[in-house]
This record gives sequence, structure tokens and C-alpha cells, in this order.
Amino acid sequence: MNDTWAPVPAGSGFGITNLPYGVFATPGTSPRVGARIGDHVLDLATALNDEVFATPSLNAFLAQGRARWTRVRARIWDLLTDERHRTDVERALHPLHTVSLHLPFDVADYIDFYASEHHATNLGRMFRPDAAALLPNWKHLPVGYHGRAGTVVVSNTDIIRPCGQRKAPADDAPTFGPSAKLDIEVEVGFVVGTPSPLGSRVATTDFAEHVFGVCLVNDWSARDIQAWEYVPLGPFLGKSFATSVSPWIVPLEALGEARVPTPAGQPALLDYLREPEPWGLDLDLELVLNGRKVSHPPYARMYYSPAQMLAHTTVNGAALRTGDLYASGTVSGPERDQWGSLIELTWNGAEPLTLPDGSTRTFLADGDTVTISGTAPGPDGARIDLGEVTGTIAPARE
Amino acid sequence: MNDTWAPVPAGSGFGITNLPYGVFATPGTSPRVGARIGDHVLDLATALNDEVFATPSLNAFLAQGRARWTRVRARIWDLLTDERHRTDVERALHPLHTVSLHLPFDVADYIDFYASEHHATNLGRMFRPDAAALLPNWKHLPVGYHGRAGTVVVSNTDIIRPCGQRKAPADDAPTFGPSAKLDIEVEVGFVVGTPSPLGSRVATTDFAEHVFGVCLVNDWSARDIQAWEYVPLGPFLGKSFATSVSPWIVPLEALGEARVPTPAGQPALLDYLREPEPWGLDLDLELVLNGRKVSHPPYARMYYSPAQMLAHTTVNGAALRTGDLYASGTVSGPERDQWGSLIELTWNGAEPLTLPDGSTRTFLADGDTVTISGTAPGPDGARIDLGEVTGTIAPARE
Repeated sequence: MNDTWAPVPAGSGFGITNLPYGVFATPGTSPRVGARIGDHVLDLATALNDEVFATPSLNAFLAQGRARWTRVRARIWDLLTDERHRTDVERALHPLHTVSLHLPFDVADYIDFYASEHHATNLGRMFRPDAAALLPNWKHLPVGYHGRAGTVVVSNTDIIRPCGQRKAPADDAPTFGPSAKLDIEVEVGFVVGTPSPLGSRVATTDFAEHVFGVCLVNDWSARDIQAWEYVPLGPFLGKSFATSVSPWIVPLEALGEARVPTPAGQPALLDYLREPEPWGLDLDLELVLNGRKVSHPPYARMYYSPAQMLAHTTVNGAALRTGDLYASGTVSGPERDQWGSLIELTWNGAEPLTLPDGSTRTFLADGDTVTISGTAPGPDGARIDLGEVTGTIAPARE
Repeated sequence: MNDTWAPVPAGSGFGITNLPYGVFATPGTSPRVGARIGDHVLDLATALNDEVFATPSLNAFLAQGRARWTRVRARIWDLLTDERHRTDVERALHPLHTVSLHLPFDVADYIDFYASEHHATNLGRMFRPDAAALLPNWKHLPVGYHGRAGTVVVSNTDIIRPCGQRKAPADDAPTFGPSAKLDIEVEVGFVVGTPSPLGSRVATTDFAEHVFGVCLVNDWSARDIQAWEYVPLGPFLGKSFATSVSPWIVPLEALGEARVPTPAGQPALLDYLREPEPWGLDLDLELVLNGRKVSHPPYARMYYSPAQMLAHTTVNGAALRTGDLYASGTVSGPERDQWGSLIELTWNGAEPLTLPDGSTRTFLADGDTVTISGTAPGPDGARIDLGEVTGTIAPARE
């Protein structure tokens, strides 16, 4: 039943148990929705003869809800496993190297959380060395804030080094110029399909009714701009210049084997944040900078699950819209080679990293390429591949 | 030339020199774009025979840019002043009391600034009594953060009291329940029409190329939720349950007489925040709570102009989209009867307000109605009316 007639390279994490969705175009055609199988893209508008996939974003499909998502997945599975469909369906398969990949969905609101205890602890130690590493609210709620939806870009978009105001503590006044502390944050993003009305709440148990799937996120951060601007209302220009997402949205159905409890925390959480069924996810992430594997953040160690983040987002009655994206915040584990940002890995620049060419980095240099990838356990010991989100730093435009 | 054949009540601030845009529907019809004249709405799809106005939001028109906005305004002016058009155009006029008013535009990203020196100073005095009232960055940049675009609602939408976590300093642990410190913030909003590409900046001198017009904003705030959640990443659920906007977007062309310099500040601003032509606005605002005029915040006293806020938003290369909304932050003047939030007017609850019925308020009670209105100087000593944004508090849904 898990055998597809479609070509899937040995060891690929894009087998029939994954089937992520994205938006692609072949030369001379308009962007439309596809599903990935192996190193091919299945044109869903053609294969399923359904206009909802003939649009340049997943949103129309996302808005159709969980029951429909399940039916479509079953239908794609059927088309790709039953030899009788092969002749028809093969015509809708495009080799990945012949297509361009686009932003897979129109982002409605974008929220960024701060849900790794190890990351928050590292930052606290760095910036408040004489106080408790975690602020008093941290173990009671998933701290989060809204980011800029309009600057979410798809993987492979060049990241232009941002300019802005920076002021070191020893300086008299701020100066203007390119960020000298351009950083990355390894994150996982969750894509909302089913909306919720204003004034209602989404329980942790309704997570899968609302959230369609998962992507990888690089929340690029200009630490010097952020440090000067962020009191008292939080990060703004230090984050809003760009946020990159991976092109393939892995449906929750593909992540059943990855579900794990979040670490049992003390103090106990308020009722609305408890989850009877675990929605932590055992995702292995990898951060690569210019070809060097820099770290392996373990998503399973996150303190709050995505179901808890969603319940928190809506506990005040805030509505959800199709296309809402929320990201986990930097994923960092307890070990140094599990940290998900350069500010941690270089301890705010004090301990540079050495790259394969012998050069060193504290923060990102122009021309640097950062790639985040990830996998999850799948059925029968196979892996589910989350793909990758990558970006190269372009020089500032002064 | 400033005489319209259309009925405009004596003293109305919705004369021919105003002509704000909104989205309306008559019973049994779909929402579409209209312009207000006196106490009537002109159906623009009919009067101008243009499909761009037959949609339920201003966005398509906003995206057409400054030259087109100017032409359309001139054409409406012509239709409403030239008697020869009267018979045709009168059929497209609907009395205001026969229409429903809708959210006038689809909000792309929503930003909230903090641009009143008097408001920021009051809050600083309240919460950091032993330190300088303004934080070090405040006079160097307009502090701002992203809010939730998906919960921006039109005036007259009931505001459901939000629930969430609150923890008083003396409490051991947070509790869950309805906000007991529900507040308002009197603000002015700016609506972006012309987008800008990722990686580019919008200079203060290009403000009018990108911003279409102005509305009134009530940035409802749950102070107890906000106080517990906001470190270190800023306000989230304390704001995201609802933000109300007025139904009429007053075009910048109607505000030429209102332009004033912002207060000359020290220290001098960095180059990108300087504006050779002033874009401060002399708007007189009024806050009414259950029929009592509570305060008159003077927008002319804001430290940063909307052109400076826009230049700051884009200085890191962040793209603008049609429908972006940014609000000024609470408008407060130096005098007590010029403050724009209850947390200031009652000094965080210590000095209750007395209402016309003899009851007192620290923060909002269920059933309270808050109305913010505003006017600006117009040509020939007339006033330009910004209309109003109003909302009534509905009980929490526990």
C-alpha cells in the first residue's frame, strides 16, 4: 500500500507517506499548486481536475478544512499507488529541476513565538547575567509577538542586509548603517487553514481542525537594530526586513509518527494550555552555513507545542484567518551543537565559528548562504523530509 | 467652485472639500465603494461607471496610486458641483441612515506606533517612577510594533471583553479570566495605497505617493493581560482581540490646511527621519465615554509625523503593501484633559472618572460605549470631519 509507481530515489524523505504541498510553475506557465513526490511535482489542477489548485497559492484549498484535506490526500495517494492511473497521471508529473517554486500561501497574520527554554535561557544569560535567565511569565505562557506578514519570502530569495539605527551602550548617540549583527533563527512554522470567528477560542484539542501543516522558517534577525529599538514594545525593524519559509508545506497527516509530549513543566500550566493528546513534534533540524553543518536543533525539546501556541493565540478571542502563519521561535536544545542562532553559537560574537574555508564568523557576512533542513520519523522507519529553507546575504543598499 | 448641489447640512464637516471614501451596502445589495457628501453616500461604481468601485474594499482603488486618486477626486468634485450632472448623479446618492458601513479596506499589515511624547512620558512615570520617563531610544526613532491585522474591525462592532492571564505583582501565580483593565487608545491611522518593493526605502518626501488617507483608530487594550505578557517581546494578546477603525478614509488631499510641523525635537534626528515639508497634522480629536466628553487629544502635538513613521518602517528595506495600516499610538497632549487613554486619565485606576449618570470608571465596564471623533481645519475656515469610531463593550465569553 505504501508503494508508489512514481519514481522515488532510494532513501528519499519525499515518498508516498509525505506528499507535501507547494506552489510551482513550469517555464511559460502560471504558478499553481502541486504535491511533491520524490524529485517530481504533481500538478494537482491537472491530476485532480480541480480548479482550486489552479491558483498561485494554497489558500483556497486551505480554507476548505480538515475533512477535505483528508480526502484530497487519500485521492493523491490513490493516484500515485494504483498502476491503473499511471498513464494519465504521469503527464502531470514535472521533474523538480524544471520548475520554479513560489511562496506556497498568502500569509494573513504572522506570529513569532519564543518557545524554546534553552534559547530563552541562553539569551537571558547573555543579556541579564545578574538576574534569573527566564523572565517570570516564560513558564506560564508561550511568549509571542506579531511579525510582518508582507515580508515573508520563499526559500532561495536573497536576503538584503538591512540598514537601520544601531547604538552600542558606549556610544553617545545612534548611528545609521548596515546591520553588523545579521543573524538567523532556526524555526518551525505552522500554517492555519480553517479560520475561527472573532470572540471564539480554539482549544488545544482542536489544533488539527485548524492547522494544515508545517514548514521550516528562518527568522532573519538584525541583532544590533533589535537591541536598540525593542524596548518597550518588542522587535520591529530588526525582524521585519525578511522572514524565509520552505517551499513545501508538510501536512499534519504525514507527522503522526513524530508526535511526542512536550517536556513536563513546572509550574503546572493553566487549563487552557493543557493538552490531553501530545502535539510536540520530534523534528530533527539542521543548520548549515556555507557548507558547514553548524548545529542540529531538536524540535522535540520545545517547551510549548504548536497546539498550545494556537490555544494561547486565540484565548483572548482573536480570530484566525486562512493563511495565518505562526512560528515556534528559535529552536535550541541543551547542547551547544543544538543551538539555532548565531548569537547563541558565537555567544554574541565572543566565540567565532570557523568555516570550511578557514574563515571565521560571528554574524553573517555578505555572500553567506544559510540552509535549514529538517526531517521527522515516518511510518516503517522511513523519514519524512521537511525540505529546506535557504537564503544568501546580499549587500546592503545604502 | 466649492458649492455642491448635493444636500449638505449647515456646519457639516462632510462638504465638497472632504469627500472621504468608505464601503457601504444598501439593503439587499453587496458592499461597494462610496464617497460621503453631507449625510449621503455616493455610489461610485454607478456614478463613475467604474468596476474598481464595485468591490467590497477600497484596495483595488488604493493600488492605482496617487495620480489616479487625484483624477477620481476631481471627477467626483465635478459631478457634485456641476448642476448638469445632477439628475444622473442624484440617483446614485443614498441617505446615510439607509446604508450599512463596512470595513473600508482589507488590512495587509498593521503597525502601531508610540509617537506621543506626552503619552510615553505618562506611561514611563507610572511604571518606572524612579527612572527617566522616556527610554533612551524614544527621541531617536518612532517606536512601533506589528499588531494583528486580522482583528481590525469597523466602527460599531461590539468589543467582546477579552480573557487571558493576569498576574498582579503580589500574586504568586497568574490566574485566568476576563480582563479587569480594559482600556482604549485614541489614535489616528494611515492607510497605504501604493506598494513599495522589498529592499527599497520610502523617503519622508514620498509619503503622499504611498499613503492614501487617514482614519480614526481605537486600539483597545487589556492592560492587565499586557502587563504580564509583554516582556521581552512586546504587546500580544493585550491588543490582538480587536482594533476599531472609522468607516471613512479621509484622503490626504482634504488635509492640506491641517499640515503643521512636528515639534522641533532635540537631539536632532538622523537624516532619514528629517522632513523638508511638514507632515504633522493639526487634528482635533475628542474622546467620549457614555456621553461624557472625557478628553480632547491634540494630534498636532505628536512628536513624529506619519511621513517619519513611514520612512522608519521601510528604512530596513521592508516592503509596503496596498492596505497596510499604521496607527500613531495613543494621542495625548500636555494637559490632563488632552490624554487619550483611561490608564492616563485615571492614573492607572487611582483617580476614577465620574460619568454623567454619577457612576465612576477606572477602566471600561460591560455596556460602556466609547466614541472617538475628530476634525481638521479645511479651506475657508470650514472644518473637515474625520467621522467617528465607536464601540460598545460586550461581556466576556468565559
